[in-house]
Amino acid sequence: MSSQATPTLSLKGIGASPGVAVGHAYILDRKRVRTPKLRLAEAEVDPERMRMKTALDLSDRQLSELKEQITRSEGPEHGLILEAHRLMLHDPMFVDEVNRLIVEDRINAEWAVRRVARKLKHLFDNIPDEYFRERRSDVEYVADRVVRNLMGQVVDEEVSLPDHAVVVAHDLSPADTAMMARSGRVAGFVTDLGGQTSHTAIVARARSIPAVVGAGRASEQISPGDLVALDGTRGLVLVNPTEDQLKLFHETMRRHQEIEARALEAKDLPAQSTDGFRMRLVGNIEFPEEIPSLLAHGAEGIGLYRTEFMFLDRKSPPTEEEQYRAYRQVLEAMGGRPVTIRTLDLGGDKVPGKTKHEKEPNPAMGLRAIRYCLANRELFRVQLRALLRASVHGHMRMMFPLICGMSELREARSELEACRTELGRAGVPLGKRFQVGIMVETPSAALIADRLAQEADFFSVGTNDLIQYSLAIDRQNRDVAYLYKPLHLSVLRSLKNIVSAAKGAGIPVAMCGEMAGDPIYALVLLALGFDELSMTAGQIPTVKGIIRESNRADAQQLLETAMELTTAEEIERFIRTEMERRLGEQQ
Amino acid sequence: MSSQATPTLSLKGIGASPGVAVGHAYILDRKRVRTPKLRLAEAEVDPERMRMKTALDLSDRQLSELKEQITRSEGPEHGLILEAHRLMLHDPMFVDEVNRLIVEDRINAEWAVRRVARKLKHLFDNIPDEYFRERRSDVEYVADRVVRNLMGQVVDEEVSLPDHAVVVAHDLSPADTAMMARSGRVAGFVTDLGGQTSHTAIVARARSIPAVVGAGRASEQISPGDLVALDGTRGLVLVNPTEDQLKLFHETMRRHQEIEARALEAKDLPAQSTDGFRMRLVGNIEFPEEIPSLLAHGAEGIGLYRTEFMFLDRKSPPTEEEQYRAYRQVLEAMGGRPVTIRTLDLGGDKVPGKTKHEKEPNPAMGLRAIRYCLANRELFRVQLRALLRASVHGHMRMMFPLICGMSELREARSELEACRTELGRAGVPLGKRFQVGIMVETPSAALIADRLAQEADFFSVGTNDLIQYSLAIDRQNRDVAYLYKPLHLSVLRSLKNIVSAAKGAGIPVAMCGEMAGDPIYALVLLALGFDELSMTAGQIPTVKGIIRESNRADAQQLLETAMELTTAEEIERFIRTEMERRLGEQQ
Repeated sequence: MSSQATPTLSLKGIGASPGVAVGHAYILDRKRVRTPKLRLAEAEVDPERMRMKTALDLSDRQLSELKEQITRSEGPEHGLILEAHRLMLHDPMFVDEVNRLIVEDRINAEWAVRRVARKLKHLFDNIPDEYFRERRSDVEYVADRVVRNLMGQVVDEEVSLPDHAVVVAHDLSPADTAMMARSGRVAGFVTDLGGQTSHTAIVARARSIPAVVGAGRASEQISPGDLVALDGTRGLVLVNPTEDQLKLFHETMRRHQEIEARALEAKDLPAQSTDGFRMRLVGNIEFPEEIPSLLAHGAEGIGLYRTEFMFLDRKSPPTEEEQYRAYRQVLEAMGGRPVTIRTLDLGGDKVPGKTKHEKEPNPAMGLRAIRYCLANRELFRVQLRALLRASVHGHMRMMFPLICGMSELREARSELEACRTELGRAGVPLGKRFQVGIMVETPSAALIADRLAQEADFFSVGTNDLIQYSLAIDRQNRDVAYLYKPLHLSVLRSLKNIVSAAKGAGIPVAMCGEMAGDPIYALVLLALGFDELSMTAGQIPTVKGIIRESNRADAQQLLETAMELTTAEEIERFIRTEMERRLGEQQ
Repeated sequence: MSSQATPTLSLKGIGASPGVAVGHAYILDRKRVRTPKLRLAEAEVDPERMRMKTALDLSDRQLSELKEQITRSEGPEHGLILEAHRLMLHDPMFVDEVNRLIVEDRINAEWAVRRVARKLKHLFDNIPDEYFRERRSDVEYVADRVVRNLMGQVVDEEVSLPDHAVVVAHDLSPADTAMMARSGRVAGFVTDLGGQTSHTAIVARARSIPAVVGAGRASEQISPGDLVALDGTRGLVLVNPTEDQLKLFHETMRRHQEIEARALEAKDLPAQSTDGFRMRLVGNIEFPEEIPSLLAHGAEGIGLYRTEFMFLDRKSPPTEEEQYRAYRQVLEAMGGRPVTIRTLDLGGDKVPGKTKHEKEPNPAMGLRAIRYCLANRELFRVQLRALLRASVHGHMRMMFPLICGMSELREARSELEACRTELGRAGVPLGKRFQVGIMVETPSAALIADRLAQEADFFSVGTNDLIQYSLAIDRQNRDVAYLYKPLHLSVLRSLKNIVSAAKGAGIPVAMCGEMAGDPIYALVLLALGFDELSMTAGQIPTVKGIIRESNRADAQQLLETAMELTTAEEIERFIRTEMERRLGEQQ
């Protein structure tokens, strides 16, 4: 086996789609075309502009076809990404600028396209948000397509993958990702670039294919045919592992698969502790396409449907009708299971149709989420009306993000009631009232949870933000990410306070941050008494397995001891050790 | 009186130095020179470079002289600002680039200076921090000086002010501000630009001259000789007020002066409530120059000496010796009164000698304060050694900023102990141990205050950050500043928790955020039981007056009722009304 001859390499990236995979590397290297750079004579300018127009038209036709294909196979949301690419081909910022360079700077079309693309990518770099930084890639894909078409190269060639391939690439275009995922031959994805919200990550999660993104220089360091073992939960990639490592990896994989298989068998059994505490495990989704995978993993509902993805990658916000259809589609697909829809959680710089160029110095503490909605009432009302109309098609619940105090909750609820009255008067069928809850994700909301519980129908704890604000840590910032500790005593105390406020008022309390789906925290969350945990589909079986094998009284004892400790490191070490001991014993 | 004929105008800015003033406007309009733009013939290039060199040398001599003058009259810190300007004259980023433009683009020196200055200002714009955005002005002052010298214009002409002038300007250079403040003829300052940390604000506070900065287009809207009434506490400017407004303003001014006069008479009386609760009112300072004003206002010590100002506006961090001298100067000037020195509270992008160009997406939640110091041990150790050595010269206390949990406190304290041992071995005199406290300014620290109180010698609550993180509000962001509420129920509960943790462990608890010096909160802070409030000098008499006239048991009753209310708006309205009623009755 080649793994003995070549040196072993261990890479760390971002776990973007959970699960483990072992396979041989297929390096997808859509070599970047070398752009010819030519100065034009005056007589060449007009022919060059014609050549540009022809390439644009061809690119447009190709993208239309791809869009049709992908919409059929992957669903309309994935098609929308290609539609966004098409829009770029018609964007004056792109087209006019290329033509201007051809005319004024007398340079050839290929060179002009690259220069404009570089400028556009630079614009995206300056938007302090992961999602938008990743949209740089879209500019690159489109520019690449146009340049290839200018040069008469073949684009969209089907990649012929071997079975169980681990696809390794610098970055993957949405078209390539979708085509390969559909082929059924991909065991896993590894990309140099990307984050949790890159297209590769979203498609991989929807298809339950393990993926590690943001893996540095993986595509240079891995050679075709290398044996690659990847762990999409922890973001690990092992290249040409030794026999021992591979054995260990297969062992872990087997154990994971066993646990998952057992859990999948048990997928219709309740997530209930051995002493009878019943939790509900539900899923986080961004696209309706993720629903089949959720149901296959035993989700009892949706705990967080992030509506903001509908607002991105487009020129104007979605209409009431569009939103209504999307919400209805999700509600119907879930067939009566509860679906918690969160209202728009975006800042002003990300909502289409707005030209807010002034950057916020600390966008995480800026005009976003419910604040943005209350400051832009018409946008908010359109979403509320769509939600009210959709509510008759299933078991809908809705919640407001980033609530700090009672004023915001009251204002948001009264806007909802105003929309309800308005629709009711117009004779629109609305069905019965649904539950209206809040995200508890600011330290302020956690501190006054007892008061908020009087007027919210349920709580859903957003741990990502709650931890970030409590510890004053931007976890996207590599320099301080080491300080981001879900088991910090202050976080545990906040969670305890939130749960006890909810129980005191008799309302349900859920968690939908990343902490909810990580097995290491399952015992703590069981001890705290959360009614519902919301996570990605692939995480459900493992967490359910742990809960079904644990005793809540024992978990409470464990938590009590942990909370006597002082530093976050001590608490984490203690919980990890105890958990491994307990779950090990039971197997 | 002209105020009847011309229309009244009301402007809102940032209150940068407290107090009220009425006077006639003196518009300081150092008209910007119109820059001539010329293309050079080849033979003109070398002479132009010589002309540039001459202008640079002249500018350098002028700045040296000014620096000497200002250091003598205002103290070395103000001189340092001019030293920073001199450094710019020698900075290759400035000089080489100007010469390059002269040689390569064949443009005249004046034009080249303006182009380079624009580029440098643009660099500052991209640093997401108020302090650095204001450093744009420095670039402008220096460029302006060089251009004037190139054109043979007179610079540094003394401004001849009438008595009781309200100086109105678009922006003020440090040199102009210092010269005018020294003249004793300035009643107040109003500038279009600037914030709490602009030079104008710092100089005005040090001299107790009321100032409103960031007042929009004030210098265009106010005409020379206009009657101007300004309130530097609330950031208000009234131009040509009506007789009634003026009367009301004079009335307020008289009342303020009366209260202050009474308070100043009582400056050596203790800040003690009528039922005997003793608080200590101390001052916040940035420069040793602020000490005389502090003492004149009855400060019993310094509650917050911000050491970071020593690190700004320079090319390399201050040496141990320099820091030692500064700390010693402050300790000696305070003559045995307690002085609380906070260790460096800056982020990596602001510390001199570092070239960290990667911008943090949310710097307020990034690598700053104690995190930065623990990540840059040598820089931290230099400061700790300087503090240890200075401690023998007065009553020193020190504290660490932005503590989140016990690990950071332990690490910081153990670094201090290591430095103490090291100096002790070297035979350096260290005196007895001083108190080591922490800033409580993260929600996390507030939540685990009981634990932190076991290992900290005192607490000092930094309300600016505590409120900001609790409510997830960047208060520098105008779009959300309306949500920044010191009387939010969650903030009051946090404060209560912190005080009770401190009392439980028997350690003193202070407050040094802006909330401490605002009279509206005095009763609440008395009720909560803070031992010490730290504020700017001008705020001390008023706050002391309120405390001396209040009964703590009654204030506690008031707070209890307030905390039964729900929204921050309700609580604020209630406290404001009750406070006015109580204090009105007593007069």
